[in-house]
Amino acid sequence: MNKIRKQFPILTRESKLIYFDNGATTLKPKSVIEAEEYYLKTISANPHTNDYQIAYQANEIIAQTRQQTAKFINAASCQEIVFTSGTTFAINQIAQGIKKILKPGDEILTTSLEHSANLLPWIVVAKQVQAKVKTLELNSDGGINLEALKQKITLQTKIVTFAHVSNTFGYENNVLEISKVIRKINPNVIIVVDAAQSVAHTEIDVQKWDIDFLAFSAHKMYGPFGLGILWGKMALLDQLEPLLYGGGMSLTIDENLEDYYLATTPEKFEGGTPNISAIYAFQKSLDFIESISIKEIKSYEKMLKHYFIDQVKQANLQAKIDFYNLDSLSPIVILNVKGINPQDIATFLDLKYHIAARSGSHCARRTVDLINTKVSLRISFAVYNTVEEIDVLIEALKHTDEFLDVLF
Amino acid sequence: MNKIRKQFPILTRESKLIYFDNGATTLKPKSVIEAEEYYLKTISANPHTNDYQIAYQANEIIAQTRQQTAKFINAASCQEIVFTSGTTFAINQIAQGIKKILKPGDEILTTSLEHSANLLPWIVVAKQVQAKVKTLELNSDGGINLEALKQKITLQTKIVTFAHVSNTFGYENNVLEISKVIRKINPNVIIVVDAAQSVAHTEIDVQKWDIDFLAFSAHKMYGPFGLGILWGKMALLDQLEPLLYGGGMSLTIDENLEDYYLATTPEKFEGGTPNISAIYAFQKSLDFIESISIKEIKSYEKMLKHYFIDQVKQANLQAKIDFYNLDSLSPIVILNVKGINPQDIATFLDLKYHIAARSGSHCARRTVDLINTKVSLRISFAVYNTVEEIDVLIEALKHTDEFLDVLF
Repeated sequence: MNKIRKQFPILTRESKLIYFDNGATTLKPKSVIEAEEYYLKTISANPHTNDYQIAYQANEIIAQTRQQTAKFINAASCQEIVFTSGTTFAINQIAQGIKKILKPGDEILTTSLEHSANLLPWIVVAKQVQAKVKTLELNSDGGINLEALKQKITLQTKIVTFAHVSNTFGYENNVLEISKVIRKINPNVIIVVDAAQSVAHTEIDVQKWDIDFLAFSAHKMYGPFGLGILWGKMALLDQLEPLLYGGGMSLTIDENLEDYYLATTPEKFEGGTPNISAIYAFQKSLDFIESISIKEIKSYEKMLKHYFIDQVKQANLQAKIDFYNLDSLSPIVILNVKGINPQDIATFLDLKYHIAARSGSHCARRTVDLINTKVSLRISFAVYNTVEEIDVLIEALKHTDEFLDVLF
Repeated sequence: MNKIRKQFPILTRESKLIYFDNGATTLKPKSVIEAEEYYLKTISANPHTNDYQIAYQANEIIAQTRQQTAKFINAASCQEIVFTSGTTFAINQIAQGIKKILKPGDEILTTSLEHSANLLPWIVVAKQVQAKVKTLELNSDGGINLEALKQKITLQTKIVTFAHVSNTFGYENNVLEISKVIRKINPNVIIVVDAAQSVAHTEIDVQKWDIDFLAFSAHKMYGPFGLGILWGKMALLDQLEPLLYGGGMSLTIDENLEDYYLATTPEKFEGGTPNISAIYAFQKSLDFIESISIKEIKSYEKMLKHYFIDQVKQANLQAKIDFYNLDSLSPIVILNVKGINPQDIATFLDLKYHIAARSGSHCARRTVDLINTKVSLRISFAVYNTVEEIDVLIEALKHTDEFLDVLF
């Protein structure tokens, strides 16, 4: 464990920091930070040319990162990897790009646990084409109910979109099972998976799953800010209209300024100068994850969650705290201390225990449909967290009645 | 000069490198690189909360950078500064965001010198609403012809959009004059200025100019990759529909998933986790520019261009090289060595002289309308370039007939 923690400069610099907001963003290992620095210090070029050596290196980096990313999610081809500014961009790109094949009355199925980034883009596109966004029934753990799903899929269903792991309930949907159920009833449904909360914590295999699109962000997987990945099946990416039009993705523009010809996939989605230093740094975050292995990470984080649950029960914290998802083994906990605003609890944890945790709706504005509260406190673990840190958290949760002393 | 050059690590590491592709991206000073590193090493948080101290710091950084950027371009309010992933995003945001006020037959005026990022988004939106993109007549130096402009502005004109400085011809348009001409005939025209090529090289004053939108990228002004700025007049930004929908920009989503309420400007345009390490680093690139002053930079780069022109004439290079814009005093040169593909010249310059220059259309695909060639070699200067480097370039241009020896 020390070997892992030592790779994160902030954990050394801020030795008291207990960072439990990994669902928002993870801390960054030295290798990732140094890669950004290396790019800016020694390459620095814009990749939209191959005319000189540092620009050539920039293009090599893009090709390598595409390859490594494709391997990481088991994509059929590195040409299916599109670099975006983040998950939000990736999902908006899918929703707006696919608009032309949507008709009035078409149905887009999703869940009320989705993050705004996988809900708003569909509400917006549905309004534009008079399609309908419908929600899927969930089990009490937040997972998609497969029996209910069967009833909802019809020939009107054009898109089913859901988070692999919810950023509040943390339940890990069985994508393979869901995809099988959907394909059996309507093989033409376009299946979109938001992997922002899962990609650093559990295995992803887009081919095995037989899905159509996947979106995730580098910064939630020990990587740099400002970089997301959109993966799609080649045939669908080829049909998708770009969300951005700019340099590097157009081949010609006719003299009447009425028509244009675009580059092929993936370049047609990557108009403008890419976040090339982040693309390089992202390689190192993939290396970091692979150096431990996603399987090991999953098993370690599951142990942390188990340990947390055991401690909660031992301390009988359920008497004064509502826990909403103790059954899930994903490294996310949402809770409310009875009678205290979660924002006050977050501040208390920060000021007294140096614990970074997050209060609010967690951008999942319809979670209220499930837990009858709009806000909660979220604790989310990552691979550098320890049982000792959880001990401090448990200690803090035992003393939440002291929050007023700390706040005033 | 040495004091400036010493701030750029790549110029020390690669002592032979002569970097003349500043129109594509500038090199980065140490302060910018270290700021990215600092953010990732010591703050690291996602700003979408204020619940703990490092997240609070992240929000402070965003507020400070907005303030500093507003001051830099003389915006009326820091709320008018929107952070995007780049100029390309910013212009697409304007074009798509404004679509709802465009009607069939409306006219969008632009120039054939525009970069694809300021041409394609308008062609796309015009097609969608059956508006018309028309070009403005240019003087032989590439500047907008004011007399012809007067004839083109009508009550059908909804948008006039142009580059402050063209990325090929380099002519600096007098935005104030252009804006006056337009306002006099039709005060309701929305004036959009692409400042990607000018913001690091000449003064910008959005209030004095009385324009409506401005777009530029951090990475072309000694700043980080993956960050652009969209400035707009508040009243117009308030009308603009977002291009991205996601976390941090929605306030509520109704239970039927049919409606939503958005945050106000600028947050409504900033869905998703911002490129926060770049936002911090961008402060340092503004500091860098301000430490010299944009006026000094302009005057120094003008001197470089003058020097280059003098040397070209002394060496009688015009006999074997077509120069397309020697009259412009912006730090951009485009040329073609007669009878040799500019890509071969770029490779020759790189391999033999370590000069980074760019061949191609420079993403300005309709420049062909003016210079009767689709491709050229572009040399673009920045504040760290020197007359000694220009001497090497002149020497290289004298010997272009040797390009075959170097290439094979």
